Amino acid sequence: MRMAELSRESGVAIATIKYYQREGLLPPGELSSPNQARYGAEHVRRLKLVRALLEIGGLPIAGVREVLAGIDEPRTSTHDVLGVVQHSLPALRAEADVADRAWAMGLIEAMCAERGWEPPPGAPLIESLVGVLCAFRTVGHEWVLDALGRYAESADRIAAADIDGVARLGTTEAIVEGAVVGTVLGDALLATLRRVAQAETSRQRFGNQ
Amino acid sequence: MRMAELSRESGVAIATIKYYQREGLLPPGELSSPNQARYGAEHVRRLKLVRALLEIGGLPIAGVREVLAGIDEPRTSTHDVLGVVQHSLPALRAEADVADRAWAMGLIEAMCAERGWEPPPGAPLIESLVGVLCAFRTVGHEWVLDALGRYAESADRIAAADIDGVARLGTTEAIVEGAVVGTVLGDALLATLRRVAQAETSRQRFGNQ
Repeated sequence: MRMAELSRESGVAIATIKYYQREGLLPPGELSSPNQARYGAEHVRRLKLVRALLEIGGLPIAGVREVLAGIDEPRTSTHDVLGVVQHSLPALRAEADVADRAWAMGLIEAMCAERGWEPPPGAPLIESLVGVLCAFRTVGHEWVLDALGRYAESADRIAAADIDGVARLGTTEAIVEGAVVGTVLGDALLATLRRVAQAETSRQRFGNQ
Repeated sequence: MRMAELSRESGVAIATIKYYQREGLLPPGELSSPNQARYGAEHVRRLKLVRALLEIGGLPIAGVREVLAGIDEPRTSTHDVLGVVQHSLPALRAEADVADRAWAMGLIEAMCAERGWEPPPGAPLIESLVGVLCAFRTVGHEWVLDALGRYAESADRIAAADIDGVARLGTTEAIVEGAVVGTVLGDALLATLRRVAQAETSRQRFGNQ
């Protein structure tokens, strides 16, 4: 199909498609003449994915580019594939001084022991977690972390559902794209469901106060 | 304290503090002379909150401004307070055609029935949820939603912990700020814990494959 049809099929404006191409988010079409490129179903699919990552996932352009590079790289084991997806997603970074870091690591070690988690030392995810925990402390709301165990338990249940779902996908391509979509859109889904559940719980508990 | 001390206490550079003031994120200090303002502990606290919302919560400047306006407005009941916080936080918006919307509403109604949730019709949160669900369908990964019930159950457990924690805070100010911090930083916490749990689950399940 030509650019105009690609735009109709994907629901993305031509100017936006050209912008994504300049940013490296969409592979070029096949040249059918020096000024004319042809696009296929994979371009439609990729455009929809880019849209979802930007608009629902809230990733920056550079983040989408990294995630797509992760999707397009050939992988071996399913565990490696999922690891690459996680590494390609933007990570939180936050500063923490020595005392705060020690406090956060204490919480994390207790949580990991309770859940039977054995993350490798120095894992980037654990660094992100240190940053988030210290942020609660910096703003004086570390009381939220009284519920850390309940958060971790829920995260474990959700992760089990995630991995169940991804494992059912057949090909490596499907697993990689599924993991990206499940992680990025899944964050948005979970955050929205949490707000719905908070509103319901608050209504039930305080509705008449 | 003066600006230089405010900067030291909060760990935020003077130029950044002035930028936040121009953007309306920090109330002015009390003028002690025409060119000299004095700041108090509440400015330090507010600066730390702004930092956390921007850097860990990932809110845009305009989002932080709205959230702070929600914090500073006087409220009556705890349920109203929590509602205002939710409304002030940036909401997802995504387009959905009639068929997709009907499909999403079907999933949402079944989920609400299962959980005993009764959100008011046309609630903005339900609109956000429609957008997220349709995004999964648009990218061809609606299989993730097979786990919607498990996601909702986890969201319910987490919301119960959130509301328990908030309810223990004494004053309205503390409840409002606590709800903002718990919601925004809580999203980051949950997303990070989910990735840690995914990595652990993947390692246990596929580690040797």
